[in-house]
Amino acid sequence: MRFEVIILGSNGAVPTPERHASAHLLRSETTDVLIDCGEGTQLQLQAAGTGLGRTDTILITHLHGDHYFGLPGLITSLSLQGRTTPLRIVSPPGLRAKLSPLLELDRWRLPFPLTFEEHTATELSLLTGSGELEIFTFPLRHRIPTNGYLIRERPREPNIRKDKIVQYGIPWTAIPDIKGGGDYQTVTGELVPHTELVAPAAPPRAYAYCSDTVYFAELADYVRGVDLLYHEATFLEDMADEAAQKGHSTAKQAARVALHAGAKQLVLGHFSARYRSVEAHEREAREVFANSWAARDLYHFTVPYAGRAEVAGK
Amino acid sequence: MRFEVIILGSNGAVPTPERHASAHLLRSETTDVLIDCGEGTQLQLQAAGTGLGRTDTILITHLHGDHYFGLPGLITSLSLQGRTTPLRIVSPPGLRAKLSPLLELDRWRLPFPLTFEEHTATELSLLTGSGELEIFTFPLRHRIPTNGYLIRERPREPNIRKDKIVQYGIPWTAIPDIKGGGDYQTVTGELVPHTELVAPAAPPRAYAYCSDTVYFAELADYVRGVDLLYHEATFLEDMADEAAQKGHSTAKQAARVALHAGAKQLVLGHFSARYRSVEAHEREAREVFANSWAARDLYHFTVPYAGRAEVAGK
Repeated sequence: MRFEVIILGSNGAVPTPERHASAHLLRSETTDVLIDCGEGTQLQLQAAGTGLGRTDTILITHLHGDHYFGLPGLITSLSLQGRTTPLRIVSPPGLRAKLSPLLELDRWRLPFPLTFEEHTATELSLLTGSGELEIFTFPLRHRIPTNGYLIRERPREPNIRKDKIVQYGIPWTAIPDIKGGGDYQTVTGELVPHTELVAPAAPPRAYAYCSDTVYFAELADYVRGVDLLYHEATFLEDMADEAAQKGHSTAKQAARVALHAGAKQLVLGHFSARYRSVEAHEREAREVFANSWAARDLYHFTVPYAGRAEVAGK
Repeated sequence: MRFEVIILGSNGAVPTPERHASAHLLRSETTDVLIDCGEGTQLQLQAAGTGLGRTDTILITHLHGDHYFGLPGLITSLSLQGRTTPLRIVSPPGLRAKLSPLLELDRWRLPFPLTFEEHTATELSLLTGSGELEIFTFPLRHRIPTNGYLIRERPREPNIRKDKIVQYGIPWTAIPDIKGGGDYQTVTGELVPHTELVAPAAPPRAYAYCSDTVYFAELADYVRGVDLLYHEATFLEDMADEAAQKGHSTAKQAARVALHAGAKQLVLGHFSARYRSVEAHEREAREVFANSWAARDLYHFTVPYAGRAEVAGK
């Protein structure tokens, strides 16, 4: 079952041809979710070979341009390509008002239903999900209202143990009841408890996206135990003061969040354009949290069950 | 003296990673002018290695997204990079109102003066120029108000003939007067007429930009005699009806404008995303106008004096 993140853009405020503005695509088995949509995201979706055919939800963290200036072009292209399936965009308040003049939303009807869900996260809270995915939002601390997002597979039903089916001669008609939590009574009247009959399903995998934010200790609570944590790392440690002033984090601070949250893997991004190479970000983060990786455009981070994520180039 | 056009984007409404949305950079010896600014133009300016350091004027043809959705990101990046020199944007009416919510123009002051000159061209008319360049605008015929632009070098003063300086012993103090149109009286009282003393300067080079438009015969008058004509060629000839319905042109119609205008060279662009290759556009145009070329991203078209433009890859 697929659960992976494609990095569409890994740079901070000023993009470069090698490192586009912020955007991730989370891909599950049946559903994709786009998180942030910097300028050029529609081109990166083409370059990744995915498009948005399996996407009904776009999550925008905040209304700084490098996180949403790709929306007007993306929505226009989806219209021109004849999309008819609904699309919703979750963001802090004000996004529709910004996009409306460009897309003339109050004058023309798009060929697909487009809805805006605008709210400011103040605590960890559950949004409407997308397909097999649950979506949560939580507050980040930046210069303007900023939402983090956590995406998790829906819990699966436990697996019936095949050896027990054979052992007790369980008919298939009894299986839904057992999966739902029931015990099983054999033909001889013996009561076999539920727990003996099932093996727990693999725990749901989770990914969290934290950009842009200063370091704050409570953030680790919001993203506790995620398999894959994306956290911005605009600066290196020698610029920690500037990071705080500008509402950003260092690579080491990102690693501290991963460590305290008990995350399995950390992906760094939103790098300042001053850094030509981001190897130092990776190195500094690994001093705190070993399984840290610098995002690079079009990298895939694949999350296996209860394991450590794998990194692959395009 | 430099006079060249860099193709930053050559595709129509839906861009691809290989063919970005519309944007050209005209480069003269001292000044660059950006014409149209589709999504991703700031990245293409980086890829071309130019930036906008020599640019005080951006010309936008019309308010369809593929011609201006790159402006919010470009202006934001210029701000973040600390630009202080003024920038003006010429466009049909409505551009400032569209950009203002994204850039919060009424709330924050950019670090450089940004002015909007909004008007609908109804005839060939002269705008304020940029450095050594004169800028004209003229009407195109599209689904919404659309301006074409013509950029021409300012006329140069004639060159004083060195042989005449020697022959008549002309002192350097007399030269400005002769350049300004005066005759010269020798020490013996002989009056040498102006025309004998000077050789005409090279004629000013001109480039015109026509996107998006249906074919119409009068357009050739607006762009008469230009050295380099850019004309949209969204479709091939077998889709001439669809081109007209959508307010666009075919490659052959573009060539007809070049032929009737007496242009020296034609560049085609704004190709529909349905075409993977644009060789057929070049071929069909050349049946009408031999010196026709399909634009490709990051191609340079260099215009020599009174000659035919040269094409070079990046």
